[in-house]
Amino acid sequence: MSEEARLHIIPLGGLGEIGKNMMAIRYQDTIVVIDAGLMFPEEELLGIDMVIPDITYLLENRDKVKAILLTHGHEDHVGALPYVLKEIDVPIYGSRLTLGLVEQKLSEQGIDAADFHSILPRDKIKIGPFEVEFFRVSHSIPDAMGIALHTPLGIVLHTGDIKLDQTPVDGEVVDFRKLAELSEKGVLVMLGDSTNADKIGFTMSEKVVGNTFDDLFGRCEGRIIVTTFASNVHRIQQVINTAQKYGRKVTVVGRSMINNVRVSMDLGYMTVPEGLLIEVEEINQYRPNQIVIVTTGSQGEPMSALTRMATADHRWVAIQPGDTVIISATPIPGNEKLVAKTVDLLFRQGAEVVYEKGVGVHVSGHAAQEELKILLNLIRPRYFIPVHGEYRHLMKHAKLAESLGIPRSRIFVTENGQMIEVGKKKASIVGKVTAGKVLVDGLGVGDVGNIVLRDRKQLSQDGIMIVVVTLNKEVGEVVAGPDIVTRGFVYVRESEKLIDEAKEKVKDALDNCTKRGITEWAVIKAHVRDRLSKYLYDMTGRRPMIMPIIMEV
Amino acid sequence: MSEEARLHIIPLGGLGEIGKNMMAIRYQDTIVVIDAGLMFPEEELLGIDMVIPDITYLLENRDKVKAILLTHGHEDHVGALPYVLKEIDVPIYGSRLTLGLVEQKLSEQGIDAADFHSILPRDKIKIGPFEVEFFRVSHSIPDAMGIALHTPLGIVLHTGDIKLDQTPVDGEVVDFRKLAELSEKGVLVMLGDSTNADKIGFTMSEKVVGNTFDDLFGRCEGRIIVTTFASNVHRIQQVINTAQKYGRKVTVVGRSMINNVRVSMDLGYMTVPEGLLIEVEEINQYRPNQIVIVTTGSQGEPMSALTRMATADHRWVAIQPGDTVIISATPIPGNEKLVAKTVDLLFRQGAEVVYEKGVGVHVSGHAAQEELKILLNLIRPRYFIPVHGEYRHLMKHAKLAESLGIPRSRIFVTENGQMIEVGKKKASIVGKVTAGKVLVDGLGVGDVGNIVLRDRKQLSQDGIMIVVVTLNKEVGEVVAGPDIVTRGFVYVRESEKLIDEAKEKVKDALDNCTKRGITEWAVIKAHVRDRLSKYLYDMTGRRPMIMPIIMEV
Repeated sequence: MSEEARLHIIPLGGLGEIGKNMMAIRYQDTIVVIDAGLMFPEEELLGIDMVIPDITYLLENRDKVKAILLTHGHEDHVGALPYVLKEIDVPIYGSRLTLGLVEQKLSEQGIDAADFHSILPRDKIKIGPFEVEFFRVSHSIPDAMGIALHTPLGIVLHTGDIKLDQTPVDGEVVDFRKLAELSEKGVLVMLGDSTNADKIGFTMSEKVVGNTFDDLFGRCEGRIIVTTFASNVHRIQQVINTAQKYGRKVTVVGRSMINNVRVSMDLGYMTVPEGLLIEVEEINQYRPNQIVIVTTGSQGEPMSALTRMATADHRWVAIQPGDTVIISATPIPGNEKLVAKTVDLLFRQGAEVVYEKGVGVHVSGHAAQEELKILLNLIRPRYFIPVHGEYRHLMKHAKLAESLGIPRSRIFVTENGQMIEVGKKKASIVGKVTAGKVLVDGLGVGDVGNIVLRDRKQLSQDGIMIVVVTLNKEVGEVVAGPDIVTRGFVYVRESEKLIDEAKEKVKDALDNCTKRGITEWAVIKAHVRDRLSKYLYDMTGRRPMIMPIIMEV
Repeated sequence: MSEEARLHIIPLGGLGEIGKNMMAIRYQDTIVVIDAGLMFPEEELLGIDMVIPDITYLLENRDKVKAILLTHGHEDHVGALPYVLKEIDVPIYGSRLTLGLVEQKLSEQGIDAADFHSILPRDKIKIGPFEVEFFRVSHSIPDAMGIALHTPLGIVLHTGDIKLDQTPVDGEVVDFRKLAELSEKGVLVMLGDSTNADKIGFTMSEKVVGNTFDDLFGRCEGRIIVTTFASNVHRIQQVINTAQKYGRKVTVVGRSMINNVRVSMDLGYMTVPEGLLIEVEEINQYRPNQIVIVTTGSQGEPMSALTRMATADHRWVAIQPGDTVIISATPIPGNEKLVAKTVDLLFRQGAEVVYEKGVGVHVSGHAAQEELKILLNLIRPRYFIPVHGEYRHLMKHAKLAESLGIPRSRIFVTENGQMIEVGKKKASIVGKVTAGKVLVDGLGVGDVGNIVLRDRKQLSQDGIMIVVVTLNKEVGEVVAGPDIVTRGFVYVRESEKLIDEAKEKVKDALDNCTKRGITEWAVIKAHVRDRLSKYLYDMTGRRPMIMPIIMEV
């Protein structure tokens, strides 16, 4: 095999984490990128708004990057595009709905004129040495695709986010025949969605939720309020269908829900009977049993419409006894408490709330273990790389593959930035490129790092004590202060004695420095800090950040 | 009904929340308290170590409080005792294991000589007008009890934490015959555990976990590391039994695990064959397939033994390929991410980790809906008060009771501090007493309130900017500064320009004040704060806390 005949697979996001999915695939001088997602910050990333992939590798190889291919329109697959497109100008390929959702997001951020190419399932596109073939998959958003990259060395198959829904709402099942055809040709590398690789059994069909809606709508005598992910177009379609069946009008509440419904209707992904949709201002013109409200807020987001309803703070919708709220979603890890709090508040407002696991108001969009086995057996790749999952999900997926007879040596449980080199007969990890998290905080992209986060952490735990003294430059004696100000440490009005004594400790420390002839500010500050820190810990058991500031006149 | 012939039921903790359970029951001049638990803080309580019930009501009625009755030894039922006993001296009744665990906890905090009374199931104790009868229940700790309070008005039955385990490890099933006897006499008020009232079906028996252990221990060829709650004595017993069966030695790691195993063995609640337990230092004298390690850390606690193993930081146990780690616990809400992180780290160290839902390595200690229905039908109380649960759990439990024919008007979904007055023919909410959360932060009990927490929150999100200027007292002109120090806002070394410009804004604001003849410090500070705040938000999209400090010489 010549030096040139090698393929490089470089995950830039989504491995060892849920979110910010991004995969670069390179052959000689051509790189294609699959997805460009964002991730919502884990709670230890205090104050951070979102996390996007580090694209240093793409910027260093700017001339080689020929396309971004999008599998579907979820934030964790397309949410970093506004940032990526600011840095790198490249054509984008995706299905109609995916591009419709992205376009709207870009225009909100003031970016337009992106080089969009709309594709249909089974479309084939030539990009340098690659032929890119999109194929239909089922997921929790319509128009989701997997990608088969025909390369000079063989086929690289990326499942995208996938479940094997045998009865999807739009009837568009996974393109099993295409998968079989690719398998028959021989799949060199498979990149497989691992999100639910630790879930036993099968993921239930979206139809199950429709049946539950039918049951609930048939029984409820008051208003029905349904919350789900704004992107779950089929879920919303099922609400609409069931509302129609039971003679209820539907109103849509919450900015992202309204936007997504509009885009989906415009593009023909949602069918709404004439006259079914009403404005939220009109709901009081109907009886409670004629109303369905579809709303954002399924994650308990503090500013969302549902949370406002739960706190009796929504402009148009006041929860009333007899209302039934259906939480048609599962909390994203980290949001459990927010969702639980919203449910509690809704109950307190007098609503009945249906949220329990196992009652069929939500199903996942990702394949569980039995489906993953079917996919692996259908595709039978030579090399297998689990993607889209935290490390444990990747490991569980790898073990599933191994249990089906794929040799462990051909399975790569790898991490963002690790470069896997694939030849016709051999594959191995050959190196590492820059990859990781770029933190977005307000307008700052990448300017908040470990030091700032460490300080925020300390400030959040025990607050801060600021000590200011003004010294005479010549003789070094105190001419004003020490003054002490605290925030987040103790309730100041009840701690006068503590603060007064703290001032004495500062004076002691300063006197001590004077006596010992210490004049260097850094040393003086360190003395003050040590003395105070010990005193405060002894008195309160807390360790606030201590900030001595010396002014000189 | 005379004025005197009324019973008051006053929840002081555990209603509308999971944790810090405490229930006061009063008849005339006698109050008995059931449980005194703590709660671990929700994440918005930044820096708080634990939360305990507000016992103002008990302190105001100090002379009437005659006993604290403990249902079982979990922290959320006994953890506030060290704080309560500092304030109020009162006899404590509980089962032997419960008292054994409490005694150890008190002695750790330097409290002894508590007035302990050990009780056995079906023991009856006379306390003023009450006859207190304890009865056996199953839960995830041995020696758990429910309590029947025979009062002049009728029986008040508190289930404690309960599940209907038909095959508990110690063979001690719920005392169904006692429940039937009480029911036959007529139960006036039932207080029922609602923790799992939103779980459909039945909770599986603890035996199921034993079967899973048997299966796993039979297959594993390397070391086995099991983590569970230190108080789950039966779970640990099952580990010991299975280890014995497969010829493995057991070592116990982690302070609370070691303590609890010792107390349980001393009191006869755990049976360990001679020679089975070894010291952790000895593990390397055995082959991997001869070793089981039982450890703390099932909640991913950062300083726990398992977390140290996962980060390759444990003194005696280094994870090695071939190790199987069994996470025999479920994350307490809020701990999901910590546990997931630990699992990921263990995989990275080369261990196989068994943690998935539905594989039978953990069962809950609380009754699910079908069990709750059985209890309600068995007890058939006149009045029903769901306890132990967040609001949604109480509501679901109330609805279950209603579905079984208990009239809604006799069901009280109530909150901490609400006083329910019960007569023979009538019950209603008659008032409110002081109740709520007391925050423990370091040595401070109750001294951190909303203002401090709000400051911690702001500091955690965007950090702080401190601005110091020294002014001449007479003429009000700046003689030193403005100096600016920030923490948790931006990375200072890369933000020199921003800070320099911020100083200019401060000077502008000061000049402006001088020109307009503003001399009041509070007003000057407000000007500086407003000017800076706008500038920083425009430049960074962040809102750090701004602290102007003026020194005068």
